[in-house]
Amino acid sequence: MTTGIGTTTAQLVDTHRPTLDRALEAIAGREFWTPHPEHPKAYGEGAAEQGKAAFDALCGSRFELPGQPVSGEWVATEVSPYGPELGISYPRMDEGAVDALLPVMRGGLPAWRKAGAEVRAAVCLEILARISARTPEFAQAVMHTSGQAFMMAFQAGGPHAQDRGMEAVAYAYAEQVRTPARVSWEKPQGKRDPLRVTKEFTPAGRGVALLIGCNTFPTWNGFPGFFASLATGNAVLVKPHPRAVLPLALTVRIAREVLAEAGFDADLVALAAEAEGDGIAKDLAVRPEIRVIDYTGGSAFGEWLESHARQARVHTEKAGVNTVVIDSTDDYQGMLANLAFSLSLYSGQMCTTPQNLLIPAAGITTESGPRGYDEVVADLAAAVDKLLGDDARANALLGALVNEQVRARLEAAPSLGEVALASRTVQNPEFPDATVRTPAIVKLDATEPESEGAYQDECFGPVSFAVAVGSTEDALELLRNTLRSKGAMTVAGYTTSSEVARQLEEVCFDEPAQLSLNLTGGVYVNQTAAFSDFHGSGGNPAANCTLCDGDFVSGRFRVVEVRRMAED
Amino acid sequence: MTTGIGTTTAQLVDTHRPTLDRALEAIAGREFWTPHPEHPKAYGEGAAEQGKAAFDALCGSRFELPGQPVSGEWVATEVSPYGPELGISYPRMDEGAVDALLPVMRGGLPAWRKAGAEVRAAVCLEILARISARTPEFAQAVMHTSGQAFMMAFQAGGPHAQDRGMEAVAYAYAEQVRTPARVSWEKPQGKRDPLRVTKEFTPAGRGVALLIGCNTFPTWNGFPGFFASLATGNAVLVKPHPRAVLPLALTVRIAREVLAEAGFDADLVALAAEAEGDGIAKDLAVRPEIRVIDYTGGSAFGEWLESHARQARVHTEKAGVNTVVIDSTDDYQGMLANLAFSLSLYSGQMCTTPQNLLIPAAGITTESGPRGYDEVVADLAAAVDKLLGDDARANALLGALVNEQVRARLEAAPSLGEVALASRTVQNPEFPDATVRTPAIVKLDATEPESEGAYQDECFGPVSFAVAVGSTEDALELLRNTLRSKGAMTVAGYTTSSEVARQLEEVCFDEPAQLSLNLTGGVYVNQTAAFSDFHGSGGNPAANCTLCDGDFVSGRFRVVEVRRMAED
Repeated sequence: MTTGIGTTTAQLVDTHRPTLDRALEAIAGREFWTPHPEHPKAYGEGAAEQGKAAFDALCGSRFELPGQPVSGEWVATEVSPYGPELGISYPRMDEGAVDALLPVMRGGLPAWRKAGAEVRAAVCLEILARISARTPEFAQAVMHTSGQAFMMAFQAGGPHAQDRGMEAVAYAYAEQVRTPARVSWEKPQGKRDPLRVTKEFTPAGRGVALLIGCNTFPTWNGFPGFFASLATGNAVLVKPHPRAVLPLALTVRIAREVLAEAGFDADLVALAAEAEGDGIAKDLAVRPEIRVIDYTGGSAFGEWLESHARQARVHTEKAGVNTVVIDSTDDYQGMLANLAFSLSLYSGQMCTTPQNLLIPAAGITTESGPRGYDEVVADLAAAVDKLLGDDARANALLGALVNEQVRARLEAAPSLGEVALASRTVQNPEFPDATVRTPAIVKLDATEPESEGAYQDECFGPVSFAVAVGSTEDALELLRNTLRSKGAMTVAGYTTSSEVARQLEEVCFDEPAQLSLNLTGGVYVNQTAAFSDFHGSGGNPAANCTLCDGDFVSGRFRVVEVRRMAED
Repeated sequence: MTTGIGTTTAQLVDTHRPTLDRALEAIAGREFWTPHPEHPKAYGEGAAEQGKAAFDALCGSRFELPGQPVSGEWVATEVSPYGPELGISYPRMDEGAVDALLPVMRGGLPAWRKAGAEVRAAVCLEILARISARTPEFAQAVMHTSGQAFMMAFQAGGPHAQDRGMEAVAYAYAEQVRTPARVSWEKPQGKRDPLRVTKEFTPAGRGVALLIGCNTFPTWNGFPGFFASLATGNAVLVKPHPRAVLPLALTVRIAREVLAEAGFDADLVALAAEAEGDGIAKDLAVRPEIRVIDYTGGSAFGEWLESHARQARVHTEKAGVNTVVIDSTDDYQGMLANLAFSLSLYSGQMCTTPQNLLIPAAGITTESGPRGYDEVVADLAAAVDKLLGDDARANALLGALVNEQVRARLEAAPSLGEVALASRTVQNPEFPDATVRTPAIVKLDATEPESEGAYQDECFGPVSFAVAVGSTEDALELLRNTLRSKGAMTVAGYTTSSEVARQLEEVCFDEPAQLSLNLTGGVYVNQTAAFSDFHGSGGNPAANCTLCDGDFVSGRFRVVEVRRMAED
């Protein structure tokens, strides 16, 4: 699927146009589709080993970005959550390098603009194809920066992230071709000659876009903004999280290669690496050249960006308080198993992991009769225990804690309330230095004022709260207040009552949030599929955008109209 | 085209679906189209007189809004720029009334959401049809609040504004139906059964939208945001400019009638009138219930909104410095006449009126040889004089100055530089109290530092600056800096050089601005046509949106997804 050196843009369009068309169909139809295989086997024999070897070769070396203006200093900031320091040095971005880099990045814009939406889409799809071909290497890079277990790093960091990137390319293309390139406008004037004007419409990128990456999902959360900005005619400056540089550095290098081969300026994409504590995102974000920002991370900085980077269109995914309303079920074991998996996957370090489980104090009804609040919580704890009872399986699901802050929060959890499920340390035989912990469940009572402080804020990591509420109505009210004040990336509900389901929907319509109802089996509240599911609603405080929709791309370019009197 | 009392929503859809389809075609094709006739004659015999009579009947009376929660106080704030006080009293909005009103407005949202995009569009088109039927009355209302001359108030305040409103309805509808309402998602799982999920996608409005109207174009600048918000499922609180309440108050009353007749809550649309100086927009804008804001007005408050109303999606049209680059022409008289008209229309009180005319100090080339800077400026002054030489014609073009600030700026203009064209007072025999002034042209030298202070800020009203620049290259550089630092709603250029035209385009691509090249005859830089031209680019400091495009509507609603395991 990739194309060789010296490729013309026409060849790139020939190669990728069918994929673009299929992706356009997918975002409109929203049925299942992916061009990126999920299973490692699909990448060929020996691919996993080659990926590992490529990753190992990068470790302990300098990551060169030939041609990019740099400061001359190097920084190595990555330590695998599995133990080893990566020892990869990146060019450190400082103010002087930024001053040199931004004009150079802008210099590539006119040719990139002239290329048009279709060529830009084809170049983006070529970048994605080359990333896809190196999925096993990306899997290692994501695993050893995020702490995701191998299979998750492979899938979420590889094909699923690539899907999200391609989805953004498709939305970007669709949005840019809504307006024709050229039109003859003719207004009747009664008996006089009509007014005749020739109008040309050109999608023009805003300038330089800044991508501020996150630690936990550098590619999955980074690709949508990266490709949406590039495909709409912007240059993209990538500022990765200092502990998750490699996946985005690889992306930048591949993008620079493809751009140069296709005859564009490689500096349309550049890397801004920093030492931990440099805080360059804050300086970059308010530079006048930066016109688009994509950010995933904590709420405080996200809100700062929204208020201060007024010269840019700012897209943020921040923190929320994901909530599950448990009213009743006709598949009790299915519900418990499903929730246990969602609480455990990647040690609850997903922005979509449920945090607050709202359960009526009087208990719930199930297909085999009523279950009290204490029983439900104990049964859920048992389901988690069962899921993670085998250490090999536990390691494969949990991955490693991404940083000390998560561990500290987990260790502080017992102080918040009665522990229904204690966290357990799991040994990882392959990586003995990894911090692997099973999730904790803490019982709280919604009617006790001191509980509020615990469950009303995000507690990122493997801690969830089984919150006893007076009734399902109270749960709905608490959900509404949570969505309004804190937001949520995900909401789930379990109920056999169509009326309760309807009320849940109403709350999620009123304070826009994405709702999963009665999930059992292999579909989980914390997972969304590109081309079909929206990731977040963009309508509550957890995020101001969704990955991905028309709104996610429409502010990244402007349509510039040039009017001329029509030639006679 | 309007539909009677007791109409079902199905009837509304039947009535208006063909118009919606045609409007959807128009925004995609961008050729000339309007369903709203421009000529007063099209509204039937006696329509103008009936409109005048309806307006006269409103003057001096209370404007009732049956059913809307109000404070009990009344305010009358409108004085026609043509002299007479309107004496129309509106319910004054105060904090208590807001506290009562906002929950009531939210109360209508669920049914409005459930109605779906098509019914909402049909209701909006019915509102527009009733507004259209009362165009002569709106013409009077716009004329006697904005100071526009009658024909302009009729056309820009009537059919052209209605076009813009319908365009917004079409964009809103198109955006909401990009995602199907329901889809079956089926993911293959190798030899196991596929995962099957039913997904429902519901466009959900954000909540209550706030429209902050302006004095000069209450309907033209107000309708796009009003209809975009309503059509995407929001309630709309209309806060008109205290000196231009009536056009939007009529809109609110008509909308409330149509909503109620169609079975929706009339309070989905409400009026917030205030006494001059109440400043309620600032309080309303940061209310948590307000999720969308549309604003037209000065830059200072627009920027305040963008920074502070973080809970809302904020659309602003602020001030810019519109610029014309005059390099050369092969139709000198055509250029002069075209510019003279644009400088004169509505006394230069359009956000699209050219302000800075950049002319090389060494002069320009024309089809009949070179013309020096002084000659070009003198010839332009003469063209304006000629255009406005006849008082009747002058009155028909100029209208009246909208307020004292505009008059003060005009009177201060001679202090800024050498006056090339002095403003002249025109008597309006019909309205002797109207302040009617012809435009002034002031000569400035771009190389003199004191000139910069004059031409680098917006000087709203009938003052333009003939700025002598070193060369066309200097003009392009000045244009670039102006666009970057101040922005512009419009840029125009006159050149016979394809290279200069190309450079002008590049500047307008780099710092997104809408460009008109070599306009002569009846097409003017300060006029845009709905369904074809974009109003502003949304990509420079003059405005953060364009009226209207996909981006103008995409943030006004969120798509809420509800996922369920598929039934077997």
